[in-house]
Amino acid sequence: MTATVHPTVDAVIEAHARLRHARPLVQCLTNRVSANFMANVLLAAGAAPAMVDNPEEASGFAAVAGAVLVNLGTPTSAQVESMRLAARAAQDGGKPWVLDPVGAGGLPWRGGVAAELLAFGPSVVRGNASEIIGLAGLGGGTRGVDSSADPAAAVGAATDLLRHAGAVAASGAVDHIVGRAAGTPASEAILVRVGGGSALLPRVTATGCSLGALVAAYAAAVGDPLLAAVAAHVHFAVAAEIAAPHASGPGSFVPAFLDALDAVDAASIRDRAQVEASPLRLA
Amino acid sequence: MTATVHPTVDAVIEAHARLRHARPLVQCLTNRVSANFMANVLLAAGAAPAMVDNPEEASGFAAVAGAVLVNLGTPTSAQVESMRLAARAAQDGGKPWVLDPVGAGGLPWRGGVAAELLAFGPSVVRGNASEIIGLAGLGGGTRGVDSSADPAAAVGAATDLLRHAGAVAASGAVDHIVGRAAGTPASEAILVRVGGGSALLPRVTATGCSLGALVAAYAAAVGDPLLAAVAAHVHFAVAAEIAAPHASGPGSFVPAFLDALDAVDAASIRDRAQVEASPLRLA
Amino acid sequence: MTATVHPTVDAVIEAHARLRHARPLVQCLTNRVSANFMANVLLAAGAAPAMVDNPEEASGFAAVAGAVLVNLGTPTSAQVESMRLAARAAQDGGKPWVLDPVGAGGLPWRGGVAAELLAFGPSVVRGNASEIIGLAGLGGGTRGVDSSADPAAAVGAATDLLRHAGAVAASGAVDHIVGRAAGTPASEAILVRVGGGSALLPRVTATGCSLGALVAAYAAAVGDPLLAAVAAHVHFAVAAEIAAPHASGPGSFVPAFLDALDAVDAASIRDRAQVEASPLRLA
Repeated sequence: MTATVHPTVDAVIEAHARLRHARPLVQCLTNRVSANFMANVLLAAGAAPAMVDNPEEASGFAAVAGAVLVNLGTPTSAQVESMRLAARAAQDGGKPWVLDPVGAGGLPWRGGVAAELLAFGPSVVRGNASEIIGLAGLGGGTRGVDSSADPAAAVGAATDLLRHAGAVAASGAVDHIVGRAAGTPASEAILVRVGGGSALLPRVTATGCSLGALVAAYAAAVGDPLLAAVAAHVHFAVAAEIAAPHASGPGSFVPAFLDALDAVDAASIRDRAQVEASPLRLA
Repeated sequence: MTATVHPTVDAVIEAHARLRHARPLVQCLTNRVSANFMANVLLAAGAAPAMVDNPEEASGFAAVAGAVLVNLGTPTSAQVESMRLAARAAQDGGKPWVLDPVGAGGLPWRGGVAAELLAFGPSVVRGNASEIIGLAGLGGGTRGVDSSADPAAAVGAATDLLRHAGAVAASGAVDHIVGRAAGTPASEAILVRVGGGSALLPRVTATGCSLGALVAAYAAAVGDPLLAAVAAHVHFAVAAEIAAPHASGPGSFVPAFLDALDAVDAASIRDRAQVEASPLRLA
Repeated sequence: MTATVHPTVDAVIEAHARLRHARPLVQCLTNRVSANFMANVLLAAGAAPAMVDNPEEASGFAAVAGAVLVNLGTPTSAQVESMRLAARAAQDGGKPWVLDPVGAGGLPWRGGVAAELLAFGPSVVRGNASEIIGLAGLGGGTRGVDSSADPAAAVGAATDLLRHAGAVAASGAVDHIVGRAAGTPASEAILVRVGGGSALLPRVTATGCSLGALVAAYAAAVGDPLLAAVAAHVHFAVAAEIAAPHASGPGSFVPAFLDALDAVDAASIRDRAQVEASPLRLA
């Protein structure tokens, strides 16, 4: 836990070094579309995946893992039970955990599950703008559901969700991430915008889901939720920029992107990171 | 719903333009082998995938989706329940839906599930020759089970299945698709043969499954089951032809094929489509 | 079933020719992370995958398949039931089957499942060193659990497990495989070391799992468990060596490796195989 006031590019570079050094074990309770790609993303980025999501083992493994990811993409009833157990174990053990509320807002049943999981105090909530807005509506926020896909439109909803989470990320063309910087008073929140990336990222399935898992890996490595969320989004954006010139379309982007997640280093982060932090008034 | 009498190359080109314009949302209830690849195939081809297959949400989501795919590759009991709910919701809501009876014929339990799902009137049934022949046997057809892998041998079985479905596709080296062209009397059926493609396609898992999902996407875009089935098979065959020269084997074919699904356009369809339609006497 | 005394390079080349000729059907009951990649590995290497793992069909399909793979990566309760049924059917029908005890040792619940499955007499047990050591501890061996990742440290545990299995493989940088060569007395066991491969293999998820499936494919083709295990590990190592120069990282290694699994032939095995067999005193 560095006492960075702002998640600066220097802080992101240090977070990346810590990730590579710690190679944290990330327990992923995720959807079946993303499982393989997410594991490869974590391996390429420098973390170790473990897809332990059955009710018999979910809680015990959370005690061993460095961080936990809960993703609501294709929930089965057994998996939802496991998610409750793992989130509770993470909360009880002081382990960072990330909630990715896929489809919350649009789908009432899983929206209810997501809202319930908020009670276990996720370190970070990550989703697209619609999901963040949808979850905030379910979580007692007042801004309701909006179908806009622009992350800028989700900042208010993300700020509402800070009552439950250490940081909230609305990922998109420009990622909008809100949280409190380590060492600052609770009344002061920060909005961090992360630019860059590639238009090919949303053309590949499970890139957003895998970004959620990378946020969990960074949270295991650096502790601070806001820095973890920002570092993961920067790592993704820089890798996508490195990969894009090697791709002829969404298919060839996949191997190039995994290669680039592996290749990202301090120099490429310094060259390419687009990070802009500004104070945010909490409502 | 165009009133094309035959699914001509011009009709396929128009269907492709509609798909790209509509970017239909396809709900996929599919096997775990295919989930990631299928989602990437739909994204690359120009549609939007949503793998919503739990009993709590399957029915409600079918009301929102543009079309539904039901694939019996690795059915769990919860998924089978979801398939019934989604197929019923699609039928009730007049939504197109596609049945891919993986393994029907060879495996009695899932054969029973597939035969039961026929009652919900799929827009299109798509499978390999053995599956079409197997399902026709289970569905009350008289031609029984045959292990032949040649789609030409499945035309009789496919015709039997027209009692339940708007069109039936036996995919293979030369795809054989039967159905009624929009605007023609019920007694007149058409057999459409789609050639081309690549020998590498069956060397990659889940290509057939993903083709079923693309049929659903086209059905959402154009309505007419026969045109949808033909257009999806042509899109696949043309993309495979574009991809093959860029591949050194089944592994490098995958990214090249996804790139090509994205790159297919009116010109490449006109240049490469091998579509041949002929009248078919219904038994 | 050749009466090879040692699994020599010649025997591996012959096993490979048999695999290509037989194109065996391998029933895979595996985790959701590996399902797609494993199917593509089997297809590229020259086998036919079928991921039939529901309780309704698991047993009946084992009677049809050439071999069965049971992998404990992400077990659900229904899948565990299917694993018992398939393993029993394989044992009853004299079909080869492979147990891959993912996470056994580290995770007590699945460790119990793995130990229970040993009673159905797997042809081959394949895992990393920790898993082999962990399973031997659960299976009544005396060497207990050790977290070492060096396959050499697992030879004692692997030898313990020969009470239950025809051959046991601890995969790693240098694979250590123990078993009895066909035609030799029960008191004489052999240790085979397989070298080569690539450091990129463990950077890709599900490579170990897929290697277990390839062992099952070879067991269907050649019968002898030790030869099957050795041939599969050699096929993998040779393909990884062929692929590595074509890869820029773990992402581009995937298509190159699948291409190479397909390209492996007698000449490349003869040029590159690193196989070293030595007698082993059974405790």
